[in-house]
Amino acid sequence: MKKIKNILASKSPRREHILSQAGFKFSIVHSNVTEISEIELPPEAFCEHWAREKAKKVAKKYPDHLIIGADTVVVLDNQILGKPKVPEKGEIMLNSLSGRTHEVITGVSFIFNDEMDFTFNETTLVSINSLSSKEISDYIYTYKPYDKAGSYGIQDFFAVHINKIVGCYYNVMGLPISSFYKYYKNIKKKLTVNEKK
Amino acid sequence: MKKIKNILASKSPRREHILSQAGFKFSIVHSNVTEISEIELPPEAFCEHWAREKAKKVAKKYPDHLIIGADTVVVLDNQILGKPKVPEKGEIMLNSLSGRTHEVITGVSFIFNDEMDFTFNETTLVSINSLSSKEISDYIYTYKPYDKAGSYGIQDFFAVHINKIVGCYYNVMGLPISSFYKYYKNIKKKLTVNEKK
Repeated sequence: MKKIKNILASKSPRREHILSQAGFKFSIVHSNVTEISEIELPPEAFCEHWAREKAKKVAKKYPDHLIIGADTVVVLDNQILGKPKVPEKGEIMLNSLSGRTHEVITGVSFIFNDEMDFTFNETTLVSINSLSSKEISDYIYTYKPYDKAGSYGIQDFFAVHINKIVGCYYNVMGLPISSFYKYYKNIKKKLTVNEKK
Repeated sequence: MKKIKNILASKSPRREHILSQAGFKFSIVHSNVTEISEIELPPEAFCEHWAREKAKKVAKKYPDHLIIGADTVVVLDNQILGKPKVPEKGEIMLNSLSGRTHEVITGVSFIFNDEMDFTFNETTLVSINSLSSKEISDYIYTYKPYDKAGSYGIQDFFAVHINKIVGCYYNVMGLPISSFYKYYKNIKKKLTVNEKK
């Protein structure tokens, strides 16, 4: 029986860090899937869709590997907040998040040949302090979060503005490690049993 | 007006990491205070007491510096869980945390000469999956969390067993950064005003 190797189909260094820190062994292959943010899906389905697209694309090139895809979105009032790209949009986003609770949702997909194709999503609630215009512009111009969904990084100075989370912290960073592990264990067991047959 | 320098009176590398990551400038001086865990205080008062003791001891040697002390405890059923030291005690602790929600409480103390002596505490709730005896002993013997309060590390493999937190994640790591920042800002402002007088 060969041991099944894992591939993380993601270019997020934070996902890599979460998995490594928890002791998982895997290699990394970028899917280079281009997300089309205009696609009409509710947030949960949206991130599951793109997690699966990433995994599917890598799975085609890597048979006999367990491929893990993931996609994280920041959601306010059921609308996905993308990457602001320019400071003005960043200020608008942080202004909308200020003093409120929003959702961070990650979709995670497992694909192995034609035998396994499983996707789930998890939500964490994140509550932000009421921010002054000065606090917002100071953060935007100092930390330049133009390529960060929702216009903030939970791991940089913005952490001081987050007063509460409910759910998995690692989910906000890009991978809900506890749920991931629960499904991963079962999937590995199932695939190993199939191989033995 | 001289700028007031900060000293973190803690030997926890995680507290250092949290503060650095959020962009704070500070130096580190170990207090070498010996915690007496038998002291009879409710958990909130216990960690405030030791946070303040650490800050006080360093403040004596470093006048004109803002000293920051901190102490974190893991609490189940109003009892503080210490460091297990030996595997058998670690197994008993994790068995008691399994399938339940416990509290992680950090006390934080700010001291500046005789002008400032302020301490607060913050609680985060942490929910652990139901763990099998095998999962517990595998974790204990692989990760040897003998010097970790509560017998687990939120940043190592044990992360897979934490299904939910309510509150500040960084509090579980040893410093509630959002509340810290709120008090820090006001304290710095007050001290600067006093200096100008």
